[in-house]
Amino acid sequence: MTTLSSTRPPAGTRDFLPDDIRRREYVIGVVRDVYERCGFEPLETPAFENIETLLGKYGEEGNKLIFKILRRGEHEASGEADLALRYDLTVPLARVVAQYQNQLPRFFKRYQIQPVWRADRPARGRYREFYQCDIDAVGSTSPIVEAESVGAVSEVLTRLGFDNFEIRLNHRRVLSALLEVSGIPEPQHADALVAIDKLDKIGAEKVVGELGSRGIPAGAAAALLDAFTPAGADGEALPALGERLRSHDAGQAAAAELSAIVELASATPAAGRLRVDPSLARGLSYYTGAIMEITVPDLAGSLGGGGRYDNLVGMFLGRDIPACGFSLGLERIIVVMTERGMFPAKVAKGAVDVTIAVLDESLRRDALRLAAELRGERLRVDIFPEPGRKLDKPLKYASSRNVPVMAILGEDERARGEVTVRDLMTRQQESAPRASAARFIAKRVRIAEQ
Amino acid sequence: MTTLSSTRPPAGTRDFLPDDIRRREYVIGVVRDVYERCGFEPLETPAFENIETLLGKYGEEGNKLIFKILRRGEHEASGEADLALRYDLTVPLARVVAQYQNQLPRFFKRYQIQPVWRADRPARGRYREFYQCDIDAVGSTSPIVEAESVGAVSEVLTRLGFDNFEIRLNHRRVLSALLEVSGIPEPQHADALVAIDKLDKIGAEKVVGELGSRGIPAGAAAALLDAFTPAGADGEALPALGERLRSHDAGQAAAAELSAIVELASATPAAGRLRVDPSLARGLSYYTGAIMEITVPDLAGSLGGGGRYDNLVGMFLGRDIPACGFSLGLERIIVVMTERGMFPAKVAKGAVDVTIAVLDESLRRDALRLAAELRGERLRVDIFPEPGRKLDKPLKYASSRNVPVMAILGEDERARGEVTVRDLMTRQQESAPRASAARFIAKRVRIAEQ
Repeated sequence: MTTLSSTRPPAGTRDFLPDDIRRREYVIGVVRDVYERCGFEPLETPAFENIETLLGKYGEEGNKLIFKILRRGEHEASGEADLALRYDLTVPLARVVAQYQNQLPRFFKRYQIQPVWRADRPARGRYREFYQCDIDAVGSTSPIVEAESVGAVSEVLTRLGFDNFEIRLNHRRVLSALLEVSGIPEPQHADALVAIDKLDKIGAEKVVGELGSRGIPAGAAAALLDAFTPAGADGEALPALGERLRSHDAGQAAAAELSAIVELASATPAAGRLRVDPSLARGLSYYTGAIMEITVPDLAGSLGGGGRYDNLVGMFLGRDIPACGFSLGLERIIVVMTERGMFPAKVAKGAVDVTIAVLDESLRRDALRLAAELRGERLRVDIFPEPGRKLDKPLKYASSRNVPVMAILGEDERARGEVTVRDLMTRQQESAPRASAARFIAKRVRIAEQ
Repeated sequence: MTTLSSTRPPAGTRDFLPDDIRRREYVIGVVRDVYERCGFEPLETPAFENIETLLGKYGEEGNKLIFKILRRGEHEASGEADLALRYDLTVPLARVVAQYQNQLPRFFKRYQIQPVWRADRPARGRYREFYQCDIDAVGSTSPIVEAESVGAVSEVLTRLGFDNFEIRLNHRRVLSALLEVSGIPEPQHADALVAIDKLDKIGAEKVVGELGSRGIPAGAAAALLDAFTPAGADGEALPALGERLRSHDAGQAAAAELSAIVELASATPAAGRLRVDPSLARGLSYYTGAIMEITVPDLAGSLGGGGRYDNLVGMFLGRDIPACGFSLGLERIIVVMTERGMFPAKVAKGAVDVTIAVLDESLRRDALRLAAELRGERLRVDIFPEPGRKLDKPLKYASSRNVPVMAILGEDERARGEVTVRDLMTRQQESAPRASAARFIAKRVRIAEQ
């Protein structure tokens, strides 16, 4: 016997009903449009990869979270896996860059919007199947790439209606230089970064404590936190940074890169959005240069982030290929937009503009013809399929789908050569000559949907 | 060491590079637009289902072809699977109809365009990951539903440029009636259907042979084949069918349903496309009423098919729910359109309208500003990110991406307050004032792309 609970989607996954899809498609449509105008090209890869492509790429913790697929046929009983579900979009990009290196341009900009799967413990807002939405530019070390990335992402967010976001910017080598000049020896950098990454969440005092518990001297910890303290007004972190790293060549060079990115980005839609924040660490260990993260003042967590990672994409080729990417938190963006009512009215509207009610079987054929005419007017049209003399069933159906207009075909209407057109909000009815009914109804729908 | 072969996608799967995606998105865009105008609503379900949701739903052969996902964590070593990749879009629909019965309208029309996974032996044109593209209308037994389905599918194919397709139409109960009146007893019907299903491929003579080898008397086989022979001109199968089934009530009723579908469909974009073919069997055993299949005269196999299946969608609810669906062969359609050059020119075009070449580092910022202006003109714009005095690299890059126009920013241009605009096809160069360059370039692109 099948119980009702077994019809739920698997833990951590979601069914997307029509209203959900309309919201998702709206956001994805804006993202695509912006990314294509910015010269990024679409790429899609299979849902699963050979297991050896993924294992070992995401650390020990990552290995555990990869969904593995059993070998098939006679090998099924072995309990071995030979395939695994995509865990992110970066490793597949690296594989694609290696596989098609002679087909792809040497400077390759791609976007990829596809689900990934991670066997995390499901929690509110954390899913086992979720979409990633990545842009990456492969093959150039120019800061134009960083500027274009933050510009593209800013354009997306602005068009979606986010008006107060900020893009925090730092540089991995600025961060290590600051650790060094604060007196934290290199072997302790990784430990220190873990603590620093929590600054937003737990505050400076607790970070100093955690640095101490990781064996970092109090003086060094204090010097480091001091370096993170905003030096003054917006955008003023850079001069102070230059001052502090005066004697550190690599740090100076990295700060100069940040400076170039800020200057270039001011000519893009990211103008006024960037804030250099020397404490930004970002979890992923593979970044090698600039790192970025989007925050909205009244929102915990981030809407996306990215950075430069020059050693990763070439992993299947055995040589370094420079790359810089940005990942938008699509699921997060949709949740926030839904909670804050940021979707345009048209997205919330139903899927159907006109329902045709047929009061007699002999009128079914004319209903289909009227539907074809209305679809020719670019309307979305549905026929309530059960003919009957009463309007209550089609009316109930149409109102459950938020349809604004109903076209009624009955014996009386046929005798008069007309169609009855009912506004389902005002309940007002009008008659239209059958021959010109489609155009008449199209006008009514446009009025009703305004 | 990583070898090159390991960067291929897994057997039976494909990477979709930008040109592939543009073709796929074009087809999917037309499909969506038509289906939405026909009142179908989008639905998406997770890539995997709980394994018990899928096992036993596709027969013994199907069970073997399901990709199964290993349990995770401490259970991984057990070699057991608890999840499985989606095998089709129909079982997930049935689960969704059960799970959300109070949220969905009682007459529910959905479309779903998502990949499915089957561990078939990979072969030319047969993949382990492929998209299905289904419409289903759930909750009505009216022949309006069949007529709307074939109408929607015909509109899709017509808009994609298929001009000589035909939709073969039959009815499961017509077929069983014909088997009965030909003298084939019910227990042999399943066997007979397997043989009949091959009629297109192997011809009448071999089908008679195969029927014989399955123990069906030669007289019965001959009578059956006779019933399949076209009775005359186009659409003339129905009267002959009525004649032949005169003494078979259920068969008569089923033929009357076909007749109603043909009559109703003549008021839809399927007008003139339907051909009643009493020999059409279709493999799937779950059909209970009308069955349909699209064929193109000079093309082996079909572009899609469907039918009515009134006992399947309710499987998780324990009661019958009528349904009728149609599945378009998206992969097949894309292959045929590619081979026959059916894609509009705009789909084949590159991803970028303008590449900006920057001849000096000091001009990078202005390049970004020009890019923003051009994107405001709805152009797709790329900046070649490595500044340099020579044009050869950006020219090579732009030509590898089929970019029609290049905007060149150099010291000379800056001194004159101009931008050089180069048509990359004709190699002609013009100068435009910097202040109005975006509009000037937008015009040039429109001319170059005509």
